[in-house]
Amino acid sequence: MAADPATSTEENAFDAATAVQRSAEGRYTGDIHPGWTHGGKPNGGYLLAILARAAADAVAAAGADHPHPLVATSTYLSAPDPGIVDVEIDVLRVGRSASQLRGRLSQDGKPCVESVLTLARLDPDAEPRFHDVEPVPVPPWEECEGGFRTTPEVEGAMDGALERRLDPATSGFFRGEPTGRGEFRGWLRFHGREPDPLALLFVADGFPPATLDLGSTGWVPTLELTVYVRALPEPGPLRVRQYTRLVQQGFFDEVCEIWDSRDRLVAQATQLAGVRFP
Amino acid sequence: MAADPATSTEENAFDAATAVQRSAEGRYTGDIHPGWTHGGKPNGGYLLAILARAAADAVAAAGADHPHPLVATSTYLSAPDPGIVDVEIDVLRVGRSASQLRGRLSQDGKPCVESVLTLARLDPDAEPRFHDVEPVPVPPWEECEGGFRTTPEVEGAMDGALERRLDPATSGFFRGEPTGRGEFRGWLRFHGREPDPLALLFVADGFPPATLDLGSTGWVPTLELTVYVRALPEPGPLRVRQYTRLVQQGFFDEVCEIWDSRDRLVAQATQLAGVRFP
Repeated sequence: MAADPATSTEENAFDAATAVQRSAEGRYTGDIHPGWTHGGKPNGGYLLAILARAAADAVAAAGADHPHPLVATSTYLSAPDPGIVDVEIDVLRVGRSASQLRGRLSQDGKPCVESVLTLARLDPDAEPRFHDVEPVPVPPWEECEGGFRTTPEVEGAMDGALERRLDPATSGFFRGEPTGRGEFRGWLRFHGREPDPLALLFVADGFPPATLDLGSTGWVPTLELTVYVRALPEPGPLRVRQYTRLVQQGFFDEVCEIWDSRDRLVAQATQLAGVRFP
Repeated sequence: MAADPATSTEENAFDAATAVQRSAEGRYTGDIHPGWTHGGKPNGGYLLAILARAAADAVAAAGADHPHPLVATSTYLSAPDPGIVDVEIDVLRVGRSASQLRGRLSQDGKPCVESVLTLARLDPDAEPRFHDVEPVPVPPWEECEGGFRTTPEVEGAMDGALERRLDPATSGFFRGEPTGRGEFRGWLRFHGREPDPLALLFVADGFPPATLDLGSTGWVPTLELTVYVRALPEPGPLRVRQYTRLVQQGFFDEVCEIWDSRDRLVAQATQLAGVRFP
């Protein structure tokens, strides 16, 4: 089913699902694909990627050479249904080294996502001046587990766009044995495309919710998601660590760290989401 | 100079500096106090607290019992000068358990800060269902160092509002010997008021920039700040850890974790800021 990354000429399913059409200055339409929803409710990182695609178009139309999301934040008001959505982008400021934009995704006039983005041009040769986050240890790709499922629809669509593998030490949930540590580690690679800053916005919310590993049930609605893209990822699989630090009063935080194939930290994300336990 | 916390009846200088006046529905004015600026540029957490005070008023006016900031994000476009600022609050959604608002702080018509906030009512008796962040070790208050200075103006004003003490193991910068670890740990308490969710928004950006401990120079402009308030803090001093994980291409991320006097994690924050080195 999945195309070979080296030979595919088809549009990747992630690119197809996040495509936007400009209808007027700062006004776009997108199309929520049902395969990127959980029980009809779209993944938060998927919606953020749609907003960022529209923002990148708007900043280019404003004449700025700031193609990459550097900071992307979004607050989720209500979940749109699969189908057409409207995206409004207001350019707040075009600066020398970065531009800032406000985005809103709505459906039938109902606001769904409120977003503020900072776009810039990431330096392909940037090297850390200081870092203290070592790449999380994950066994080689072949020794990690694929084929896990949270819901059949979303996983089916993702299978056409990308492949995820979990470190068996963290994948107990999918064998009915959550570890109780609230962490998933593993790999992610796209079919037919290499990772880029836009894709990282999705990957930052693209692993199963860390609370599954604590025994949570049902949908995990993201309230807010903040992603910092720190570097242009090299081609190849991404190494991902997603974990929670505090579950309290029906909310949990979730940190996501992403390294590229050269072991560089390319994105850092945090979200606050709602959660239920049996 | 500083009032005794137990007996003061004067308004705390933080409350005075963050006060807002409603001029129309969703429209407020605030006053940037020069003592809360670094070389004339206001602290990012200070501006976020002004926005959150206006948001709390607006959500109360909308009839919702959501007095506490649960999530507060802000993007900094340009630094206002000391003096009058305008705050616009748009209520995006009033829900059963939380309300979401958009805020903008501007001066003389120029947009300065774009913010999205989620307000709710925090449960005073909430206990963690899961947590894996132990309170950072800090020596007792008396053994920590006060009186450190980044810039005289801002520290002078803060001295009237609050007191900060640094763990001597992390305060080498102020003795001309940065440790190179990019971390400050210590205590913070207010004079004449106890900590509350609003104050935590300031505290989340209230320690010296972690990059000073790496030898950075000059102003550290925050691009974006995200704060999650996780619990109502108990009275007493706050324990603070502020650290960076990656400095690259002139940007650094900074995480801030805050515990209350009962050793509960009460706030988690992350920011992306610009930085220069000699």
